[in-house]
Amino acid sequence: MNNHQAPITQASLGRLLRPRSIALIGVSAEPGSAGGAVLSNLERFGYQGNIHLVSRTQKEVHGRPCVASVDDLPHGVDVAVLGVPQAAILGTLESCAARGVGAALVFASGFAETDAAGKAAQLELATVAGRNNLPVLGPNCLGFVNYIDNVPLTFEAVPPTKGAAGVAVLAQSGAMAANIRMALVSRGCPVAYAISTGNEAVVAVEDLLEWLIDDPHTHAISLLVEQIRNPERFLALAEKAMSHGKPLVMLHPGRSERARDAAMSHTGAMAGNYSIMAVLAAASGVVHVDTLDELFDVTLLLNRFPSGAAGGTAILTNSGACKGVALDFAEAIGLELPLLAPETVSSLQALLPAFASAENPLDITTAGMKDASLFGTTAMTLLDDPGVGSLVVTVMGGSPGQQLAKANALVPCLSKSTKPAVIAYMGDDSPLAEGLSDVMRAGAVPFFRSPERAMRAMRALANYWRVAQTMGSREAGPQVPAAEFPRRGLLAEYQAKALLAPLGLAMPRGGLAKTVNEAIDIAREIGYPVVMKAQAPELPHKSDVGGVAIKIADAAGVRDAWERIRTSVLRARPELELDGLLVESMAPSGLEMVVGARRDPEWGAVVLIGLGGIWIETLKDFRLIPVAASRQQVLAEIEKLRGAALLHGTRGAPALDIEALADSIMLLAAVMRANPELVEIDINPLVVFEAGKGVLALDALMVTRS
Amino acid sequence: MNNHQAPITQASLGRLLRPRSIALIGVSAEPGSAGGAVLSNLERFGYQGNIHLVSRTQKEVHGRPCVASVDDLPHGVDVAVLGVPQAAILGTLESCAARGVGAALVFASGFAETDAAGKAAQLELATVAGRNNLPVLGPNCLGFVNYIDNVPLTFEAVPPTKGAAGVAVLAQSGAMAANIRMALVSRGCPVAYAISTGNEAVVAVEDLLEWLIDDPHTHAISLLVEQIRNPERFLALAEKAMSHGKPLVMLHPGRSERARDAAMSHTGAMAGNYSIMAVLAAASGVVHVDTLDELFDVTLLLNRFPSGAAGGTAILTNSGACKGVALDFAEAIGLELPLLAPETVSSLQALLPAFASAENPLDITTAGMKDASLFGTTAMTLLDDPGVGSLVVTVMGGSPGQQLAKANALVPCLSKSTKPAVIAYMGDDSPLAEGLSDVMRAGAVPFFRSPERAMRAMRALANYWRVAQTMGSREAGPQVPAAEFPRRGLLAEYQAKALLAPLGLAMPRGGLAKTVNEAIDIAREIGYPVVMKAQAPELPHKSDVGGVAIKIADAAGVRDAWERIRTSVLRARPELELDGLLVESMAPSGLEMVVGARRDPEWGAVVLIGLGGIWIETLKDFRLIPVAASRQQVLAEIEKLRGAALLHGTRGAPALDIEALADSIMLLAAVMRANPELVEIDINPLVVFEAGKGVLALDALMVTRS
Repeated sequence: MNNHQAPITQASLGRLLRPRSIALIGVSAEPGSAGGAVLSNLERFGYQGNIHLVSRTQKEVHGRPCVASVDDLPHGVDVAVLGVPQAAILGTLESCAARGVGAALVFASGFAETDAAGKAAQLELATVAGRNNLPVLGPNCLGFVNYIDNVPLTFEAVPPTKGAAGVAVLAQSGAMAANIRMALVSRGCPVAYAISTGNEAVVAVEDLLEWLIDDPHTHAISLLVEQIRNPERFLALAEKAMSHGKPLVMLHPGRSERARDAAMSHTGAMAGNYSIMAVLAAASGVVHVDTLDELFDVTLLLNRFPSGAAGGTAILTNSGACKGVALDFAEAIGLELPLLAPETVSSLQALLPAFASAENPLDITTAGMKDASLFGTTAMTLLDDPGVGSLVVTVMGGSPGQQLAKANALVPCLSKSTKPAVIAYMGDDSPLAEGLSDVMRAGAVPFFRSPERAMRAMRALANYWRVAQTMGSREAGPQVPAAEFPRRGLLAEYQAKALLAPLGLAMPRGGLAKTVNEAIDIAREIGYPVVMKAQAPELPHKSDVGGVAIKIADAAGVRDAWERIRTSVLRARPELELDGLLVESMAPSGLEMVVGARRDPEWGAVVLIGLGGIWIETLKDFRLIPVAASRQQVLAEIEKLRGAALLHGTRGAPALDIEALADSIMLLAAVMRANPELVEIDINPLVVFEAGKGVLALDALMVTRS
Repeated sequence: MNNHQAPITQASLGRLLRPRSIALIGVSAEPGSAGGAVLSNLERFGYQGNIHLVSRTQKEVHGRPCVASVDDLPHGVDVAVLGVPQAAILGTLESCAARGVGAALVFASGFAETDAAGKAAQLELATVAGRNNLPVLGPNCLGFVNYIDNVPLTFEAVPPTKGAAGVAVLAQSGAMAANIRMALVSRGCPVAYAISTGNEAVVAVEDLLEWLIDDPHTHAISLLVEQIRNPERFLALAEKAMSHGKPLVMLHPGRSERARDAAMSHTGAMAGNYSIMAVLAAASGVVHVDTLDELFDVTLLLNRFPSGAAGGTAILTNSGACKGVALDFAEAIGLELPLLAPETVSSLQALLPAFASAENPLDITTAGMKDASLFGTTAMTLLDDPGVGSLVVTVMGGSPGQQLAKANALVPCLSKSTKPAVIAYMGDDSPLAEGLSDVMRAGAVPFFRSPERAMRAMRALANYWRVAQTMGSREAGPQVPAAEFPRRGLLAEYQAKALLAPLGLAMPRGGLAKTVNEAIDIAREIGYPVVMKAQAPELPHKSDVGGVAIKIADAAGVRDAWERIRTSVLRARPELELDGLLVESMAPSGLEMVVGARRDPEWGAVVLIGLGGIWIETLKDFRLIPVAASRQQVLAEIEKLRGAALLHGTRGAPALDIEALADSIMLLAAVMRANPELVEIDINPLVVFEAGKGVLALDALMVTRS
């Protein structure tokens, strides 16, 4: 729906988001008037700019004069807020443009989210906006709140909050933007902006993302998107956000097929390949979370701790039972709880009674009840450990006095920490001591009620910093020249192999025979036994039609196979013209793997690696890897295969040639980078031999954009 | 540590938990006096029984007279609360016993949780208690609160709460018992008892569990245990709890190796096999959760809805974006969100605007803003669907007025529902409207702030009812006679096979040869090719020492193999006396699986099934199944193997004999049931052939208690 004809400038978005003057169009004091509600918000926030009111029926609202028409507005108002009904939107936009309005905000629903007529109206809206270079937020949105400049352009009654640099909340859904904002504010996290883009007829999340990355008041971005309209731009912006040290935390429904169906029926958009999106977004530094709780928790932690150190998490508790619960949960979610350095152990032993174990998780036992300062000193000691990257203090609160004593001991220590350090007061919704949250907030110590949520968020942080580290140190993969494809669409095996062999992908010796005598010549040259395979671009599944013969021992066998293959392919596919038969050496046996590549038309390309047969077909044991990945990342991904042990040699088998396997992946990545029209490569199987003995591509398939 | 010499009667536990008279020993009005704190609690709760005070130094406390010594107490006080130091505990217990005290409560620490001296003191405590038939709670515990009879026997300052039948909280850790109690109370869940058992020198959780199951005020039990001292009794009680309709929700750290190590160093106890515990506890109806959050959520839901219907979960929301988030999360955690029945769809279509999709999850769109009653009517419609077993309403709250409007529409409908139905108001910790929680609690509608937590809890409920259904309808497996084992400890393959073959486990034809001529005779009788395997109980891994020869084609081959095997076994294990060589037919090839059985000395027996080779060794792809499982459950567990597709025939292979595989499992289960001294069976491999062609046990190993 995004009308790409009208490029949205960052300056015009500035007029939208930080307006010095606002026109409220269709304003009334009646309850239920969107314009009136926005006016009340502006007054409550003490907006300092100029407010202009447009009303056909009223002379004044809230004691402010109204003009009767948009045409009566002064020229060049920064933003117009359209509180008029759906039917009046287009005309009003035209009038706004004529008055030199800088940007517009459309609340009205009844556009693409409804029916065909609504879709048509939305297209027209985009056209009007494009023609007038007018950035329009909406339609069908709840608007936005800019807490920095006190600009609450939403009809939801928003409590005024002191502006502070911090998180920008961005969502298509207005309800969700409000949900995230409320959740963050209630947790003491500063929110700078909360913006809903609605149907995105003109302005999309990508446009706002770009503005927010450059905005000095935005330290982290919390994003809930159902659809990303311009994936390439999104990924580039994600990398920019990371390089600017602004974490981008995203919840994007669509992992399950049913969620993708729901999004498609909701927005009418073709969902791109979700797995490819997930891999590329993560590689570009997006912290991709799975639940709302995680979105809140990770956002508030990354806003507080935008940079972090390597190292696992230390747990500090005053309940022995908590240690076991934490250890189990850490293992379940893959959070590293490192062993402590010997110096840390000695320091802790000096602080704690003899019956306490100086380890991670650390239970300070009832000693903390007698001397609350131990919470602080042990926390500092844990944070000083070079192997510790973050700290979760998980405590039973006790009486209000005990709760405060713990906070008073912990907060001065934790608030100084550059390593992420949080407190979880257990007890779920049970009331906390009066003043406790003030102590925490004064020290900017994030706090939780659920130790599990705190631990899960710490895992996301650790992953984020891992990506941040690799992003700076990316080495370039091999470069290959662009290929000259013999045709568009599917390529036959021999054609794909002819393109890949010169680049260094190992494959059996052999060649294409157009006659049986050519086949015999090739077989004699490469040596028996050989395999023979029918070749035609339209025949990707040749073995299904009897197009393959193996273990051919001599010239008579070649003649026999030639006839057999031609006859059975002819029977199955009478219309098919074979290019010939590929004659190749029989390969020795080894571990059959699948390597390949996929390009999503919107998100871009990834390479794929998996174990063959049931592993990839039934267990879905494969990894997708960005084509920009380093060799080290490729090796790490290979190790993440569930069946990776097969490569290391199990049950007396030798270790296999993982280096050659990684070379193949790096090569396919280079081929995908060099050939934007290439949409798919499948090497199935790629046989992997003993270490040092390489790999062989037994089959190959390529598909270009047709 | 539990002293089993003194059986704890349920009557004596009644005197402990519902005392009509209490003696506080070592009471003072000084701050920090445990006895004084208990007295304050009793006064605050308005305890109606008799309170006797014992103080060496004070004549009266809180205006109540004190006696100077336990010997001055009236005879037959129900419970004595020992607020005296560790050193005085044993003497005081003896004095209590002499005065006919019914039960005792020991707060003091310094016992088994500290050092060797403490352990010795605890053993002595148990001995004193045993000799006097005195049930002692503790030591090192925080005591308990009985909210039904207003008995707060703890030194933690507890706010008095109106007694109501509901949840009994049970934990070894006093801090955790308090944590769970506070969390449940804060969520509006009635708590009848909260009990901490501390070091369990005498009274253990199993004892209290039995009492609670029979107690009319206990509707559900929330358990956090680090150790279960009497697993057999625990499992029997779990089944009893389920048959009484009292859900038992348990968090038991120890899934990870590090948590088990922590528990062992903490309690000095040998942890049983955690996986076996988990399988047997679940089969006995225990709802085994993984996190504290889940413990709270599942407990409060099962207390409210102790019985439930089959069927998946319906989601009702007013945010389109929530649909996708819910679908993704449901798939991730395995929660079924069923499709709606056609009648439900029609009814919803009649209620909702045309642009709303009548499906599950159901987004009622902005229509709910205009008419809040739609929340109620659509909720009722979803709950009436026969395929829907539970409902999660996940809503954006909106303004305080909107929040209340939703609650007023929903609560009257949901409170009548026999199917579990809950509301999640999104927004994390953001404040809810004044009075909102009162509306929910008046209607006994559980509510959440996190949709994810509500969904996760619903999944636990669905699993619980699935177990409840199968428990009633268990058919008995096959019965086999007890075996006569030729020796204790390891049995040789031929010995294990001799025990299993007559029971019907299929194996290759063959027999034990003590001489080479016997081997030739056997081979001639069964027909070539044959395999030959060295046999001795002390040689379980015979192929490691060259003890196996395969594909032997004739008598010369037998002679040759005989010499070769004897020589190489002799070289590797010169001390070993072979019983002979097993001569068997070569089996045709098929899918190699592993079946077996394990008995944990404390928890009992399970059978094991997995795919052979890398599947079981590297992927740990196996299932443990209770020996009491029905054939149907065994078949269901087979399907849960990640490689189950191999049994159904993939890539053109035929489907395999799953029925015969299930027979083997049922047989091994019967063997384990019939032979309590049998600790392990391994059939590795069990080869599975095409459907109808059965299985063959190629190897067999048995271990009895030595």
